[in-house]
Amino acid sequence: MFISQVQTGGNLSALCFLMNLFQEWSVESDMTETNDFRIEKDFLGEMKISNQHYYGIQTLRAVENFPITGQSIDEELIRGMGLVKAAAARANCKVGQLPARLADAIEKASFEVADGRWNEEFIVDPIQGGAGTSVNMNANEVIANRALEILGHEKGDFMVLSANSHVNMSQSTNDAFPTAFKLALLSRLNQLLPAMESLHASFLEKASEFEHCLKMGRTHLQDAVPIRLGQEFGAYAAVIERNLNHIRQIRGTLYETNMGATAVGTGLNADPEYIRTVIEELAAMSGFPLTTSPNLVDGTQNTDVYVTVSGALKTTMASLSKIANDLRLMASGPRTGLNEILLPPRQPGSSIMPGKVNPVMAEVVNQVAFKVIGNDVTVTLASEAGQFELNVMEPVLVSSLLDSIRMMTNVMDVFDRHCIQGIQAHTERMAQYVDQSVGVITAINPHIGYEPAASIAKEAISSGRPVRDICLERGVLTELELKEILDPYEMTKPGISGKALIEQ
Amino acid sequence: MFISQVQTGGNLSALCFLMNLFQEWSVESDMTETNDFRIEKDFLGEMKISNQHYYGIQTLRAVENFPITGQSIDEELIRGMGLVKAAAARANCKVGQLPARLADAIEKASFEVADGRWNEEFIVDPIQGGAGTSVNMNANEVIANRALEILGHEKGDFMVLSANSHVNMSQSTNDAFPTAFKLALLSRLNQLLPAMESLHASFLEKASEFEHCLKMGRTHLQDAVPIRLGQEFGAYAAVIERNLNHIRQIRGTLYETNMGATAVGTGLNADPEYIRTVIEELAAMSGFPLTTSPNLVDGTQNTDVYVTVSGALKTTMASLSKIANDLRLMASGPRTGLNEILLPPRQPGSSIMPGKVNPVMAEVVNQVAFKVIGNDVTVTLASEAGQFELNVMEPVLVSSLLDSIRMMTNVMDVFDRHCIQGIQAHTERMAQYVDQSVGVITAINPHIGYEPAASIAKEAISSGRPVRDICLERGVLTELELKEILDPYEMTKPGISGKALIEQ
Amino acid sequence: MFISQVQTGGNLSALCFLMNLFQEWSVESDMTETNDFRIEKDFLGEMKISNQHYYGIQTLRAVENFPITGQSIDEELIRGMGLVKAAAARANCKVGQLPARLADAIEKASFEVADGRWNEEFIVDPIQGGAGTSVNMNANEVIANRALEILGHEKGDFMVLSANSHVNMSQSTNDAFPTAFKLALLSRLNQLLPAMESLHASFLEKASEFEHCLKMGRTHLQDAVPIRLGQEFGAYAAVIERNLNHIRQIRGTLYETNMGATAVGTGLNADPEYIRTVIEELAAMSGFPLTTSPNLVDGTQNTDVYVTVSGALKTTMASLSKIANDLRLMASGPRTGLNEILLPPRQPGSSIMPGKVNPVMAEVVNQVAFKVIGNDVTVTLASEAGQFELNVMEPVLVSSLLDSIRMMTNVMDVFDRHCIQGIQAHTERMAQYVDQSVGVITAINPHIGYEPAASIAKEAISSGRPVRDICLERGVLTELELKEILDPYEMTKPGISGKALIEQ
Amino acid sequence: MFISQVQTGGNLSALCFLMNLFQEWSVESDMTETNDFRIEKDFLGEMKISNQHYYGIQTLRAVENFPITGQSIDEELIRGMGLVKAAAARANCKVGQLPARLADAIEKASFEVADGRWNEEFIVDPIQGGAGTSVNMNANEVIANRALEILGHEKGDFMVLSANSHVNMSQSTNDAFPTAFKLALLSRLNQLLPAMESLHASFLEKASEFEHCLKMGRTHLQDAVPIRLGQEFGAYAAVIERNLNHIRQIRGTLYETNMGATAVGTGLNADPEYIRTVIEELAAMSGFPLTTSPNLVDGTQNTDVYVTVSGALKTTMASLSKIANDLRLMASGPRTGLNEILLPPRQPGSSIMPGKVNPVMAEVVNQVAFKVIGNDVTVTLASEAGQFELNVMEPVLVSSLLDSIRMMTNVMDVFDRHCIQGIQAHTERMAQYVDQSVGVITAINPHIGYEPAASIAKEAISSGRPVRDICLERGVLTELELKEILDPYEMTKPGISGKALIEQ
Repeated sequence: MFISQVQTGGNLSALCFLMNLFQEWSVESDMTETNDFRIEKDFLGEMKISNQHYYGIQTLRAVENFPITGQSIDEELIRGMGLVKAAAARANCKVGQLPARLADAIEKASFEVADGRWNEEFIVDPIQGGAGTSVNMNANEVIANRALEILGHEKGDFMVLSANSHVNMSQSTNDAFPTAFKLALLSRLNQLLPAMESLHASFLEKASEFEHCLKMGRTHLQDAVPIRLGQEFGAYAAVIERNLNHIRQIRGTLYETNMGATAVGTGLNADPEYIRTVIEELAAMSGFPLTTSPNLVDGTQNTDVYVTVSGALKTTMASLSKIANDLRLMASGPRTGLNEILLPPRQPGSSIMPGKVNPVMAEVVNQVAFKVIGNDVTVTLASEAGQFELNVMEPVLVSSLLDSIRMMTNVMDVFDRHCIQGIQAHTERMAQYVDQSVGVITAINPHIGYEPAASIAKEAISSGRPVRDICLERGVLTELELKEILDPYEMTKPGISGKALIEQ
Repeated sequence: MFISQVQTGGNLSALCFLMNLFQEWSVESDMTETNDFRIEKDFLGEMKISNQHYYGIQTLRAVENFPITGQSIDEELIRGMGLVKAAAARANCKVGQLPARLADAIEKASFEVADGRWNEEFIVDPIQGGAGTSVNMNANEVIANRALEILGHEKGDFMVLSANSHVNMSQSTNDAFPTAFKLALLSRLNQLLPAMESLHASFLEKASEFEHCLKMGRTHLQDAVPIRLGQEFGAYAAVIERNLNHIRQIRGTLYETNMGATAVGTGLNADPEYIRTVIEELAAMSGFPLTTSPNLVDGTQNTDVYVTVSGALKTTMASLSKIANDLRLMASGPRTGLNEILLPPRQPGSSIMPGKVNPVMAEVVNQVAFKVIGNDVTVTLASEAGQFELNVMEPVLVSSLLDSIRMMTNVMDVFDRHCIQGIQAHTERMAQYVDQSVGVITAINPHIGYEPAASIAKEAISSGRPVRDICLERGVLTELELKEILDPYEMTKPGISGKALIEQ
Repeated sequence: MFISQVQTGGNLSALCFLMNLFQEWSVESDMTETNDFRIEKDFLGEMKISNQHYYGIQTLRAVENFPITGQSIDEELIRGMGLVKAAAARANCKVGQLPARLADAIEKASFEVADGRWNEEFIVDPIQGGAGTSVNMNANEVIANRALEILGHEKGDFMVLSANSHVNMSQSTNDAFPTAFKLALLSRLNQLLPAMESLHASFLEKASEFEHCLKMGRTHLQDAVPIRLGQEFGAYAAVIERNLNHIRQIRGTLYETNMGATAVGTGLNADPEYIRTVIEELAAMSGFPLTTSPNLVDGTQNTDVYVTVSGALKTTMASLSKIANDLRLMASGPRTGLNEILLPPRQPGSSIMPGKVNPVMAEVVNQVAFKVIGNDVTVTLASEAGQFELNVMEPVLVSSLLDSIRMMTNVMDVFDRHCIQGIQAHTERMAQYVDQSVGVITAINPHIGYEPAASIAKEAISSGRPVRDICLERGVLTELELKEILDPYEMTKPGISGKALIEQ
Repeated sequence: MFISQVQTGGNLSALCFLMNLFQEWSVESDMTETNDFRIEKDFLGEMKISNQHYYGIQTLRAVENFPITGQSIDEELIRGMGLVKAAAARANCKVGQLPARLADAIEKASFEVADGRWNEEFIVDPIQGGAGTSVNMNANEVIANRALEILGHEKGDFMVLSANSHVNMSQSTNDAFPTAFKLALLSRLNQLLPAMESLHASFLEKASEFEHCLKMGRTHLQDAVPIRLGQEFGAYAAVIERNLNHIRQIRGTLYETNMGATAVGTGLNADPEYIRTVIEELAAMSGFPLTTSPNLVDGTQNTDVYVTVSGALKTTMASLSKIANDLRLMASGPRTGLNEILLPPRQPGSSIMPGKVNPVMAEVVNQVAFKVIGNDVTVTLASEAGQFELNVMEPVLVSSLLDSIRMMTNVMDVFDRHCIQGIQAHTERMAQYVDQSVGVITAINPHIGYEPAASIAKEAISSGRPVRDICLERGVLTELELKEILDPYEMTKPGISGKALIEQ
């Protein structure tokens, strides 16, 4: 009924679409034929709601108002809402604000929400006006009606137990929603970190596997000096590890929540004893070492910690995208590219060119990087747009940030398993490059000076002859000296090749 | 089976999730119990596929490789793929490459795809490696199997009719996918433009309604000089109209497609006669005045037109976000803000503060703007990352751009209907502001000079007294002169208030 | 004196710094010893100003307030301010507001400003609060004092001729500054367009030079099918041309100015006759076909046209960056890269590796692209932040946009002259790649079908043997047929290689 | 001569321009008349260089190649280069690579560079191809020629002491330039941090000053519940402090340099003993606790630490921009805005509206934020574009990041001194808002429930009557109860107003 006014986005999967149609149809038929609906009202009016559903009038208003993306609320955010409501109910009960009977029912219903049992009742769009009020009210309504059911009452019997007065007791959207978001963020980061760790471990393993695999280093895409493939993979491991540690460190800042801040951070309507209690309950329920922000006004109006998280994510993806680009370059060919490594073939690469295999896993890493970088801009703009006591742009911030983490987790997992772990080195090809290269001239530098060396390099490049031959011809170094100086493997370690020669 | 390896994102709605589980379960049960599956193979190996499904091995490989967003392919993109395949089949038939019997079946199946009948068979992720190969192959496979069925054959009987050799005949992903994307883009723009037109019409209507509604103009958020609310809404209409025209103009550049370019734009394997024919067919089928790019190599490797479209979208949203901000400011209050206008109340604004109503429709406009600006960065990065004959980053570009348009269409529709159309002016409040204001001093400027006027203004501000009184007290202007000069309504039109006085 | 409070940025060249020190010192010595200064005052107080200078108190306040970037105002913006002031003076005179004697002096002084004679008197920072008020007042003050001098008066004799009352007559910062900015933008675009045209011409010339230069096309950095280098350069020319035309088209929208809008777009204090006259004068003086915006309120508060310009610039640079990347890849090597082309060597590439030459001209193109893309975000944010009747963020928008155009003009010029024009093709190397490639299998596709072709390709890649040999061995095609089908040059044109064979 | 080929950007200050002209003229006259020039050559050819100058042929080539921005190299980067060269010379001497006589001269010349004495000899553009080679060579050449002079030789006598072989000994651009950049970054951060600390202290001081200043809190720009102005400033202080700590923490990661990495991170041509020594020398000379990266290959190719720094900067500015927006809103008016605070007037705000004063210091903060956010995109793109062993895009990254820090330092300083420190509160006005507000209804919520409270709020808003009166009229609370519950000051502290009443 209301849903039918929603302009369905194309990325609402057809399955969902059909289910929705079915749902609406049932609702309609219920309403018209068996009258199985209830009337709910708020201070703006009243609406009919199918009794099959636990959500209420404010949820439906939001569905009507915000048919923006056609996507669903992140299930970890729903879980976060469930935990927040459960903790609040228990705390309110402990401080004597909420009768135990109501508290127990709310807590039970909230845990069901946290466990994902009522995910389909969360129908508001992730991008919505109102700073998350609609997500919060969706949770309040589902929990209230489910709690009423648990207590043996009808849905909608709000004189007994009300979404606002009881489920939302001592809370505001402005503390409940950000707190639930932090829980979601922490959970999602806890999925991302193992994916990063696995990827890091795979890079390290490959670094070890390719430890002795000599190749030409390249700077500016031009031949530089020898390096080992293992050193390159070691550098990939190092940058991932540094970002991993950075994200782990930032995660620590997310344990501070603003539960108890209520509307503007002053804690109005939240008993100090409740504030102390609710965070203990929530920490216990969630398993995260949560604390209350020492400045709840700050904790309510400022969203910089999310921008910091987003910044760390995009930094990571910019680095991973660089790695993906390196791999695509090294795997280029097979006949007309560098062809230094082989990425595991994952799917036919072309609908027209038979036998073609493309570096698809690396390509999808690049694309997720572009998305995460774009999302970082969105998160930054949303954060900048806060005003006075609140940042009403949190919904788009929340959804962009959670999207980024999910995509990163997913792409790191498949990049690791379907690409990195199976990389093979074409050691002969790489050795050939080293043999052909002029870049080894660099090692001669300390022995004869930059300018004479440059002249030899120039001749080598234009004539196509080896550096060694020209050195001999010009009589600048002996064959023995050259043998010692031009050992490419030695060039991959710190030091002056043939240093003993200089010191003689 | 393969899907179960996909890490499901939280925004896969629970419904989809359940359906997927069900699907998998059926597949499993089919496969194990009734053996209702087929084996498909490509040059990388073979896979089992449930005979319930039309997609094939390459689709499944893509699902395994790219479980990134958990979202679905835009249905307009699926429609575009269907039309492209139908047009290609007909053109191939006309030029004698494809037997009529096969062509007819492919065309019929393609139209079913275009009509959305097989949307649920498009299961690849919008963000994927491979430049859209997986979307193209998903379409090729679904159409091939459906065409086989139409012809009375079993799914998978590719000796009769093959996804690559027949459905994809004379095509490559590199022309079929971008062409389908252009069709999707054109369709989505054709949904956006009416939404913008309605919004424009509503602003114009309000401009007319508020034509005589005098208020204070503000610059730097400081009192400036009088203006009429109608003039402000007229400016909102004007900026929307300019952007509307700009998008309409850019739309024209999208009619040029690279159909016939095949792999790298050279048209290899595409008969020149086919190239001429296919675009005519596609134009007729789609209803868009499509043409073939005069330079197919350019048309295949360059993606600048999409960046141009994205740029126009974000320009529009930056302007609309500014309008939303103005409305939120004017509607601020009711007691402690400007309170110049009333936005239609759409939902209770707070879970804790009774009676509060927030400007939620304007807030969601801001958020979509932030998302579209972020997506524009993504689109730009993806475009910049093209290499040689192709831009393999098109999937993320495509999905970001279509997301932006869909969100914009949706948000403009609800912003128009649920907000703009119902705005009411608090004319008395605005009149009070004009009366109190010191900004009217500007009109006195031409009569007495800037510096003396500034001195009067300063006294007016510090003393709280009216400008008029201080002018009289200082004897710089007579009561009669002041009456003529200080008419605020006159100040909202070009000209010097009381000009006759100067010329005397 | 005031300048000494400015924290000088490091990119204030040392020369400027020394000059400033010298200047200050002179000022100090003048003031203390010879008392060669004047006192200026505004409603906030008074300041001492060295009589060597034409700027006045408001300029000095701005210098004190905004020591942000240490950079100078774009000289074209100063020129624009000069023209605006000259046109306004003449128009005010024509409509009888300004005595001819004053108007003539203002006009003369304004033309001197427009000609760059007083550039060093424009000392305010490009990034400043106040929507450009400080640039406008800097111009008003310089012109007023210079006009006084022309009239034989002392600087500072504002009773005779005042910065606000006479030079700024019938204007506000809010119309004068954006109009000057539009003139600057038009001038800068008129410098950019020839640079783009030259670059385009060079690409076209190279396309012609490399018309018959056969090479392998690459998609996904993997071997695809043959193409000609000339076709690639033709595509580069095409994308530059399309962007050139796009910028030309957008330029047309900049001719519409808001001169006469004054403070908020209502035209208060601007005589209608003046509004008609001033734009004619300004069009004549500037040589641009300027018009007055049909909606001056819109023209004053909205900045979308600048975002559109910026969007076109970044679209262009994203495309040019892709071209630069292609060139860097093709020029990679010389021994361990693709080595398909030679970029003109421009400077030694390494301080340690003798003889190394890097693709520096392409690299600087990439970097300008990154800067322009970043500036586009800045421009967008600034535009979105407008409020009510004005966008006070224009200074950063103006400076970012002019920076982008200047950098683009400069980089296109050197990229053209120092890189593109001198590119040489390594035709033999490219021919070798074509010979070795497996990608030619695509041409066999239509003759034997995708799947058998894929099997041959797979064997060719794993064995390293030519496609031709395997085809013969498998007996799928005869030697004669293969000769016709596998002609790589034919593959670079639309059509099915050896089509006659199929039709037989 | 070469400079004359540079297209001078408009933001080259006129002073510089004139000086350049003068310089060129002298050069020309010297060269033609007195032949006071030398010929320098490299492997690409030779060039004439005025003997007045210390820079050499590679510097001039760069000036010719990269006339991009017209700006100067950050003086802290020049200082960094000087320190790096001094430390390298000393270390090379200690390990016996460089004779003491040469080392002493290089060190002396390098310190002169570090002290800014030769800043005007650094003429390469900040945006340049070649990964900083031109900056490095500019330093090498200036130092070599100055060292020659110190040794009593002629400039250009490179057989005695060479830019490449001696000044650049054991180094590559790829370790010298990033290390110099890190020193510059550390110095600039050491200027930023005190500016942030002062700003933080001022916010804290104001928080204390406004501790008891009651006002209405606003969420969604709508009346919420009472808060104290001091609480708001306390939140501003808190977010600045958090970002301050974050930047301090990140600063620690910058102490790790890649000195000794040479060309690709393998340390070729750098003696291990040198590597150990050089970092000790550099740490001592710079005063920073520098260390050598444990993985020099990683340290050379990855630039993620800079993206992390940039991310922290933009996070800070997004928060500060939000604060600036709040202040602009609170200071809006004086008659038609909120008018809750008074920002110190800094300059006349309008060229047409006498007496107008604008919040210019806050506006310039917003603009710097937009610039820093745009620069962050540039930095991210540059970082992502690294390839293999090096990131050649470092120049644009370096210049954007240093620009951001300088602008932030400057703007925080003036924002603090010219705005924050002088803010005055309009306490009466704020008190009036609290009195009028309906938001106090929230405190009644716990006593009578959300729904009844909403009904009272609705009546209060529509009728304009006080909440208190309606409560009494409806008999829901007594006068005594209301007095206790509706104490606004109590509402700004955690707890339920009139809690005792409930518990009775």
